[in-house]
Amino acid sequence: MAAEIVNPRSDSSTDQGSSEEPFDPAFALHRGGKMAVQATVPIRDRDDLSLAYTPGVAKVCTAIAENPDLVHDYTWKSQVVAVVTDGTAVLGLGDIGPEASLPVMEGKAILFKQFGGVDAVPIALATTDTDEIIETVVRLAPSFGGVNLEDISAPRCFEIERRLQEALDIPVFHDDQHGTAVVTLAALRNAAKLTGRTLGELRGVISGAGAAGVAIAKFLLEAGLGDVAVADRKGIVSRDRQDLTDVKRELAEITNKAGLSGSLETALAGADVFIGVSGGTVPEPAVASMAPGAFVFAMANPNPEVHPDIAHKYASVVATGRSDYPNQINNVLAFPGIFAGALQVRASRITEGMKIAAANALADVVGDQLAADYVIPSPFDERVAPAVTAAVAAAARAEGVARR
Amino acid sequence: MAAEIVNPRSDSSTDQGSSEEPFDPAFALHRGGKMAVQATVPIRDRDDLSLAYTPGVAKVCTAIAENPDLVHDYTWKSQVVAVVTDGTAVLGLGDIGPEASLPVMEGKAILFKQFGGVDAVPIALATTDTDEIIETVVRLAPSFGGVNLEDISAPRCFEIERRLQEALDIPVFHDDQHGTAVVTLAALRNAAKLTGRTLGELRGVISGAGAAGVAIAKFLLEAGLGDVAVADRKGIVSRDRQDLTDVKRELAEITNKAGLSGSLETALAGADVFIGVSGGTVPEPAVASMAPGAFVFAMANPNPEVHPDIAHKYASVVATGRSDYPNQINNVLAFPGIFAGALQVRASRITEGMKIAAANALADVVGDQLAADYVIPSPFDERVAPAVTAAVAAAARAEGVARR
Repeated sequence: MAAEIVNPRSDSSTDQGSSEEPFDPAFALHRGGKMAVQATVPIRDRDDLSLAYTPGVAKVCTAIAENPDLVHDYTWKSQVVAVVTDGTAVLGLGDIGPEASLPVMEGKAILFKQFGGVDAVPIALATTDTDEIIETVVRLAPSFGGVNLEDISAPRCFEIERRLQEALDIPVFHDDQHGTAVVTLAALRNAAKLTGRTLGELRGVISGAGAAGVAIAKFLLEAGLGDVAVADRKGIVSRDRQDLTDVKRELAEITNKAGLSGSLETALAGADVFIGVSGGTVPEPAVASMAPGAFVFAMANPNPEVHPDIAHKYASVVATGRSDYPNQINNVLAFPGIFAGALQVRASRITEGMKIAAANALADVVGDQLAADYVIPSPFDERVAPAVTAAVAAAARAEGVARR
Repeated sequence: MAAEIVNPRSDSSTDQGSSEEPFDPAFALHRGGKMAVQATVPIRDRDDLSLAYTPGVAKVCTAIAENPDLVHDYTWKSQVVAVVTDGTAVLGLGDIGPEASLPVMEGKAILFKQFGGVDAVPIALATTDTDEIIETVVRLAPSFGGVNLEDISAPRCFEIERRLQEALDIPVFHDDQHGTAVVTLAALRNAAKLTGRTLGELRGVISGAGAAGVAIAKFLLEAGLGDVAVADRKGIVSRDRQDLTDVKRELAEITNKAGLSGSLETALAGADVFIGVSGGTVPEPAVASMAPGAFVFAMANPNPEVHPDIAHKYASVVATGRSDYPNQINNVLAFPGIFAGALQVRASRITEGMKIAAANALADVVGDQLAADYVIPSPFDERVAPAVTAAVAAAARAEGVARR
């Protein structure tokens, strides 16, 4: 087809660009972007054209107009997720704007495809206003089967997700919150199993009260964790603090049953679990003060809050966010299968039960091979996405949010 | 990869759907939609992942944050067009809403890919409000290299296109207007050439004052057509009419130099060109009243305003919108190459000169084979898209709207 001839991406003759390409494999790989659209039906001749486009397409449009549910059968809607950001909390880079966030959104989109078989489209918005983001996504929703919110800063991310899910009948999922929480729970569950403990007897400490920290705290408590304290830059989030946002005040109500106040180090003394989603460094004496056989999940990238070499001196299980150490807590273990399962049954939302099911399925993939350096599967373990997908679909049915 | 296993589209075991599938090849072809996303870079192992996603992607994001132009080099932005509709004027079906319009938008998207090598994403909006459509598309714009407006009803389509192009520095193009106009001009130019006439000595009549009719009238006049009268349901658009919208009042100022008033039939008497973009039927006596050697372009689908068998009794050149007659006026001859050319040079807009260049290039493809039944190439002529692309890119440079 003519496609190959005129594809602007492949036209190197005019590719002078405005850039001086740095000598770096990441730049070389990103040139021209990382994704494309493809037709899944043939358009070889007039007959094909008259089926896929006019006049044949008119019958399909009319059928959908008469029975809107048919849009799921005869378009890619139920197969495609919008990856929506406003570019305010991109990786550890912060508020870099929509254009600069696009490489991450494209990366997310191709991970959706590669690991979950889910099509995804990067949508980086030229607004950071909460109301505008919400109304924009509501207007886009007819074209998509789900919405993955990405790299939107706290506390706006909480309200945006909540109000969008209230407004829409397709899943809305802020992966920085829930994807991280699901993978963390899976790892924690396996760590507890390995050391013969229950979640209920564990006290955790989370460093970081942003999107991930808040979601992990809530989710682990729902899953049965005995107690958890969350520390932000000013210390433990506790009821006696006067400087809390609404979100943190709510957090203070449900976390920190021990009634601790003060610094992160104070919270760590005697704690069973450390979960780092903040960056920064935890001093070695604070790690040493944790309970015997503690778990240290130091997930900041690229520099874990506790270096694994230090963590191993005191902890029974160590996890990081890095691919070059064992036990990588990586969202890609969760979000492709969670959306694939939700889309498969046309779930109207992603419930807490579906997320718990995802975490359990993910933990179970490890099976008999459970060991201190293997509490969570590899992102490239091909059993992961099918297991999560099936568990999430089944949970959606059990919870009454499936529509087929 | 796991993709194949968990792809919801391929999961036939749960595919009970809400539909009873009609026995029709168009429905069979549309099941599951017509398009997908694909990764254009490998994600086979941790090394790939660390380049395409974290941590490697962070360098690319940082580079774009420092030099926003680099978004064109390192993402798919300059390769992808949003196909935006509100579902109000879909084919001949009218206002069927965003969901029911999706099969057409997907069809358009895969034509972009197949014929122009351009990626395209269907965006069917849940609003028909002019201001809301404009603000929504402006917010989406960071993610796209161009906007193809589609099947938005007149007169809103004119204001939406104008205001969006004013607001954005990427091409905004309402294909129902300009794509149709470009292909019509190409056919008309060749018909004139075939019969030894110039555009300046021709008087045309357009039936239909919607998006296509208005755009064709303006464009043919710009290209040098001697005169043109446009008729809507109430007759010839003329200065003496009191019932005209703003758009039609503007049209009355620049068209109908002959000062005709009355019915379409009145305008056709002695006219050299008939262009039908309205549906309905033109009575045979009115066709017979046209000047000798007239051109009849009866483009309504599926029923041309003048049946080709009737038209051939009086006209020297006959064209339709149908694929089963010679000389099909099909937008797919224009829009893929127009966007491919504009994207290739990162044009900030699609100028009149670029559209004229597209029409000329399209006409020139016919070359020495010019004949009464061959004034416009086939959509499957592989020379078309490269020719249009090159002409549009060159025109963009000549007109100073190219950015590389």
